[in-house]
Amino acid sequence: VFTAEILSVGDELLIGKTTNTNLTWLSGQLTHLGGIVRRGLTVRDEISEISEALTLILGRKPDAVIISGGLGPTFDDKTLQGIAHNLGLCLRVDRRALDLVKERVGELNPGRLKMAHLPEGSRALRNPKGTAPGVYLTVGKVHLFALPGVPSEMRAIFKNSVVSLLGKELPLGFFYEASLLSSGIPESKMAPIISEGMAQFPEVYIKSHPLGMEKGRPKIILHITSQTNEVAVQEAREMLRARVKRSGGIVASP
Amino acid sequence: VFTAEILSVGDELLIGKTTNTNLTWLSGQLTHLGGIVRRGLTVRDEISEISEALTLILGRKPDAVIISGGLGPTFDDKTLQGIAHNLGLCLRVDRRALDLVKERVGELNPGRLKMAHLPEGSRALRNPKGTAPGVYLTVGKVHLFALPGVPSEMRAIFKNSVVSLLGKELPLGFFYEASLLSSGIPESKMAPIISEGMAQFPEVYIKSHPLGMEKGRPKIILHITSQTNEVAVQEAREMLRARVKRSGGIVASP
Repeated sequence: VFTAEILSVGDELLIGKTTNTNLTWLSGQLTHLGGIVRRGLTVRDEISEISEALTLILGRKPDAVIISGGLGPTFDDKTLQGIAHNLGLCLRVDRRALDLVKERVGELNPGRLKMAHLPEGSRALRNPKGTAPGVYLTVGKVHLFALPGVPSEMRAIFKNSVVSLLGKELPLGFFYEASLLSSGIPESKMAPIISEGMAQFPEVYIKSHPLGMEKGRPKIILHITSQTNEVAVQEAREMLRARVKRSGGIVASP
Repeated sequence: VFTAEILSVGDELLIGKTTNTNLTWLSGQLTHLGGIVRRGLTVRDEISEISEALTLILGRKPDAVIISGGLGPTFDDKTLQGIAHNLGLCLRVDRRALDLVKERVGELNPGRLKMAHLPEGSRALRNPKGTAPGVYLTVGKVHLFALPGVPSEMRAIFKNSVVSLLGKELPLGFFYEASLLSSGIPESKMAPIISEGMAQFPEVYIKSHPLGMEKGRPKIILHITSQTNEVAVQEAREMLRARVKRSGGIVASP
């Protein structure tokens, strides 16, 4: 099993200003690559908070840690300081990071120079959509990546660099899923149907997501997944469809 | 200072299926009530993960903990089991919770009965939008709330019960904010302008959110906040507006 933990850095995520879509996207990518995202942590722009979060995460010995946010040029971008503090590393001008920054912007200034200060021993990752390079470090056996918080930049560096750097660490990347929309069966009556499905298909995981009432009928999405068996996912979906109908519900594809 | 930590429970948040808008909404509410949300944690539907997260959170001695998700009738709704395990409490049928469940649905079944099993010593909170009651517990001086993951239910219980139960613990609830949209100034050149603003207005916090390029001009939102001084927020906004213009940028209201 390939496990990952995600650390999101930014006050904006903890004052109600910004919704953390980076966690959703990164979780989806890692899951579809065959990994399991075990935990997500969101912290403020404080060196002590970033460092304490890293201690917790590294203590769980994941295969990979993906950090997003806090790589920019302003004083409150503190992710690399937090990493350096936690690991007892210096921050210093990284030649490759400096070249990457200069490639994007002509002249240097203190903010741009700040983005080229990396923890010693790390590798700068090209940012095709912005100025702040991504950062890659190994901590023992853990692959640690720090990516910008701007979604387009984070996604581009993940696709261009992170996936290939993880390379052979990644499992083969199977993740099968199917969904079913049920109407007319309340969640508490769905519970035994789900248990029955999971007993019958042990490689399959079934989860219900209640959507509330529509015209007096409870609507529920059933999400059926497996990391091993594609056929079982489809068979489980057919079994659930039949059971929901037999209980008086209506089924559709969501 | 009133501090809060938020725990989000649900596999769907860690496989890329669902974006955690509950964290955004709860953070916004608590911030506007005058609190500070110090950290958000997202875990899977596992008793050990929920319990371990609670240990971490309670160790930080926040004034309040808000948990969302995992209160439903299905086998993978494990939040109350996680709380009970962590605090060494039994789960048992709670009379008030049972009444609340019965009020919403006529007949009982195992799933519905499950939702009325609360950790001993807790208080059931009416759910005006669904069946699963919310749960309120005090752990030493910490106010702990478990709310459903369905956003409409979570929001209704927060507004109807959580705010009044926190009552006099809450500060007066000041949170002032203003924003400014700047175009034509790159983030690295904005950094010294922000530092200048924060030096001039010590009660004010200024954060830049880069939005990427538009027609070759970098766009940045400046977010100006204070929990103490409304006038300073407006003055800082005017000062930033003038400084951005003087540096050749264009300003607008976002």
